[in-house]
Amino acid sequence: MKLGINAYGKNAVNLSKIIRHADHHEFRQVSVSVQLSGDFDTAHTLGDNSQILPTDTQKNTVYVLAKEHFTGTIEEFGLYLAHYFVTRNPQISKARVAIEEHSWQRMSFDGQPHTHSFTGGTTEKRTTVVTQDAAGPVVVSGLKDLLLLKTTDSGFENFIKDEYTVLKETSDRILATQCEASWEYTATALDFEALYQQIRTSLLHTFSAHKSLSVQHTLYAIGEQILLDNDVVKEVSLVMPNKHHIPFNLEQFGLENKNEIFVATDAPFGYITGTVVRD
Amino acid sequence: MKLGINAYGKNAVNLSKIIRHADHHEFRQVSVSVQLSGDFDTAHTLGDNSQILPTDTQKNTVYVLAKEHFTGTIEEFGLYLAHYFVTRNPQISKARVAIEEHSWQRMSFDGQPHTHSFTGGTTEKRTTVVTQDAAGPVVVSGLKDLLLLKTTDSGFENFIKDEYTVLKETSDRILATQCEASWEYTATALDFEALYQQIRTSLLHTFSAHKSLSVQHTLYAIGEQILLDNDVVKEVSLVMPNKHHIPFNLEQFGLENKNEIFVATDAPFGYITGTVVRD
Amino acid sequence: MKLGINAYGKNAVNLSKIIRHADHHEFRQVSVSVQLSGDFDTAHTLGDNSQILPTDTQKNTVYVLAKEHFTGTIEEFGLYLAHYFVTRNPQISKARVAIEEHSWQRMSFDGQPHTHSFTGGTTEKRTTVVTQDAAGPVVVSGLKDLLLLKTTDSGFENFIKDEYTVLKETSDRILATQCEASWEYTATALDFEALYQQIRTSLLHTFSAHKSLSVQHTLYAIGEQILLDNDVVKEVSLVMPNKHHIPFNLEQFGLENKNEIFVATDAPFGYITGTVVRD
Amino acid sequence: MKLGINAYGKNAVNLSKIIRHADHHEFRQVSVSVQLSGDFDTAHTLGDNSQILPTDTQKNTVYVLAKEHFTGTIEEFGLYLAHYFVTRNPQISKARVAIEEHSWQRMSFDGQPHTHSFTGGTTEKRTTVVTQDAAGPVVVSGLKDLLLLKTTDSGFENFIKDEYTVLKETSDRILATQCEASWEYTATALDFEALYQQIRTSLLHTFSAHKSLSVQHTLYAIGEQILLDNDVVKEVSLVMPNKHHIPFNLEQFGLENKNEIFVATDAPFGYITGTVVRD
Repeated sequence: MKLGINAYGKNAVNLSKIIRHADHHEFRQVSVSVQLSGDFDTAHTLGDNSQILPTDTQKNTVYVLAKEHFTGTIEEFGLYLAHYFVTRNPQISKARVAIEEHSWQRMSFDGQPHTHSFTGGTTEKRTTVVTQDAAGPVVVSGLKDLLLLKTTDSGFENFIKDEYTVLKETSDRILATQCEASWEYTATALDFEALYQQIRTSLLHTFSAHKSLSVQHTLYAIGEQILLDNDVVKEVSLVMPNKHHIPFNLEQFGLENKNEIFVATDAPFGYITGTVVRD
Repeated sequence: MKLGINAYGKNAVNLSKIIRHADHHEFRQVSVSVQLSGDFDTAHTLGDNSQILPTDTQKNTVYVLAKEHFTGTIEEFGLYLAHYFVTRNPQISKARVAIEEHSWQRMSFDGQPHTHSFTGGTTEKRTTVVTQDAAGPVVVSGLKDLLLLKTTDSGFENFIKDEYTVLKETSDRILATQCEASWEYTATALDFEALYQQIRTSLLHTFSAHKSLSVQHTLYAIGEQILLDNDVVKEVSLVMPNKHHIPFNLEQFGLENKNEIFVATDAPFGYITGTVVRD
Repeated sequence: MKLGINAYGKNAVNLSKIIRHADHHEFRQVSVSVQLSGDFDTAHTLGDNSQILPTDTQKNTVYVLAKEHFTGTIEEFGLYLAHYFVTRNPQISKARVAIEEHSWQRMSFDGQPHTHSFTGGTTEKRTTVVTQDAAGPVVVSGLKDLLLLKTTDSGFENFIKDEYTVLKETSDRILATQCEASWEYTATALDFEALYQQIRTSLLHTFSAHKSLSVQHTLYAIGEQILLDNDVVKEVSLVMPNKHHIPFNLEQFGLENKNEIFVATDAPFGYITGTVVRD
Repeated sequence: MKLGINAYGKNAVNLSKIIRHADHHEFRQVSVSVQLSGDFDTAHTLGDNSQILPTDTQKNTVYVLAKEHFTGTIEEFGLYLAHYFVTRNPQISKARVAIEEHSWQRMSFDGQPHTHSFTGGTTEKRTTVVTQDAAGPVVVSGLKDLLLLKTTDSGFENFIKDEYTVLKETSDRILATQCEASWEYTATALDFEALYQQIRTSLLHTFSAHKSLSVQHTLYAIGEQILLDNDVVKEVSLVMPNKHHIPFNLEQFGLENKNEIFVATDAPFGYITGTVVRD
């Protein structure tokens, strides 16, 4: 027997930071997960911990380094952390740092932004996964739990019908998804903030403007548009579960459902995934 | 033995509606729960279902009536439903209809609102509970899962110290809560939309402007302000769990934590509840 | 304006304990929530914390007192805690201590129980709520998240049919629920362990033996049996959501569903609650 | 641009089955997820659905085929389903069928098993993933959400200490995990039921008997033992998050914590993963 693929680290390091400016405060909230790979065979086979940096220490490292180095994007902080772990520990061949950022919205009253009060943002999180090994760092950024919905310009027709098919074709349905997107950057010295806003806009704009013939069709269109708009993106992966909204059968009660009343269901759900790459 | 307090009904009736205007669509998503009370003793003691309106029928009723009657606020729809159940079923002495509305945000591009595409809103839900019995309907509206946070103007000092107290006094801490608020209206023919916006603004404004000496102190200030601002509100109940953000101990690593790096924790949590009433 | 009903305390104090016997270990895991009521008006209205025992101190108190006083049932520990808070703090008129215990099962190999290894138990938790005020302590014990299911001896017929009823009558369906039960004891010096086991058996036995004509019918039968079997129980409250298992429509594919293939659904769900009391 | 890796299917098909024997009933509950891969490029690029078997049809297929073919292990049902999808649809090059089975426990009274009543089992689920492509089917079975805990025979010492290390070495701690295990079989015509029981016993026995020097050490020991005991297992993968139980600091209150009172925490948590393979 021998050890195959393995990794260890600290997950769910929940960190909040107040950045204090002269006349207002910023508030940031992230969850950081560190996973380390390397020469850990004897830890497994012999219980030899001499090459093990405890996950508790990893956690402390995240909090300590956040003080000076979490001042900008999660990508920059992730790059710093991954570099830190790999360069200080020769036995670590690869560090993977995943960061999710929760959004907070500054309160406004009469058009004036408040200096230090916030409401919780949407379910959407901004994400990054920075991986660093001997080949250098790679940044894959994205978003998750972004709820998207359009009330028209979506259909599903001309599919296979077999003996177990009862689904009706429709040229007008609700399309809704809890979108997860990630994209690999070709470089690490980038304006991650501007790129994020630009890519997110490409995603939203394509979703809304596209005449969708299926989830797959929309998924590909979004990935293609992000690649067209952003040279520094190598590939785009999308996860688009189909959050079904099924028309309620009003006809059994003598009424017509003009595509207006729906049952929102959680399970079962269609699950569509795809990656769009450059030729 | 005999039957004491009892009720039954259908919970989590998840309903979506597209309201189709000439040039744009509205999208609404609610979860409706119906609970009926009345003369159901023999259902319990004898298994006599002759007075039982099945929960499946209650569910159908919600969907059917939504077609014509869910066109405005959840309060108006709740009033219609509660009245419907009570007036059609003499054995039902009380109907309780609870509705939660999920928020969706219309997409905008270059300042132009999109006609039919939306992103998911925040975790905040708008709520109402309409109860109707022989005394007539009562409307208790509110909100839940509203995340509130302020980075300063909050302290906690001068509390009791006993042999198990290690908490340090602080004049400057993060105050964060997942706020649930509900308020009872004194009437049922009201502009529920305008009132909701006004009350929510009172809540946010008080939270942000208040020099908080404790969660209790802020809770009361919010309730008091809502009552001062709104004659048609009889009383306000608030649930304000303390979402602790604990300063990370940087001092053990030779650094100073100038109230900037925090550990966000889920459990355990302080739980503060209170009702503010008129004299 | 003035303060109405209010309370505060620490929730979700997650505590584990190893009880070390000479030849084996016990392992206990509980979640404790403390809520205190009393003369806290000036804390709300003035921010005066001089009567406030911090929730952090409450948490510490739970951990410290567990060392000596959490040696038996959760009821005994709850009684000790509630008494402690009320008698040490004159401003506290009522303490409510709620405890949930998670179940762990000792591993066995070849019929031999292991001395110190355990697997997680079921979703079922044992619960107690001890309330103490000037009138003395009251113990309401129970269980929650107990999944119950029977594959026959359950029907639902002869219910009201109106214009929105499509549910078919059935004399043979699955009855499943995620049962929550609580019962108030008439005394506080009881063998809570033996009573719990006896009441739980009454509940399970009645559920399985009863010819159920509705959820209400079974709910009442369970409550009645617990009261018949246990003189020290004053009343029984039951929450029995209907975890629907809906026959899948095989007929549309030319097959007969002889009550064998079901769709398990989460929402919407019937929600049936009732209390059975002594005459 | 072009399409990279992609798949689609129906997730969370929740299916219950009563198997009716002459004198008792069996009750089974599973969640099935189907993912299909193949030649779906034009569905993405052109919105051409002519090669798309709708996820709704996939769901129906699961329910219909369960009637005759879900009579034994989830592995046998998964093999049947994967084979069905691949052989009926030439455009599908790979079908992945994942099944999770929830456990139910037959009630017993006075040592007699009840014929048709059940309580919910533990959080543990039995799992299988059957993948079929041109190379034939592969079965990877396992379990998840198995809570394991031992109160002694676990330590963590001799690890790296750097400037951010504060963790104390310990030779006696609680070791707890929410274990996920999966193992690849070398064949598909096996007694999956007997193998499952045998492998699960290897896992539990090794966990309890092992003198653990770290989570990694125990993880490897479990994987090694499963491979030693079972020739038909090719490799074993384990996910063992560290469910920390941290000793509560009683010393600050003048008491000694003899490894008896712990704080159970959810986040952050150590996350240890590894695969054990044959040489």
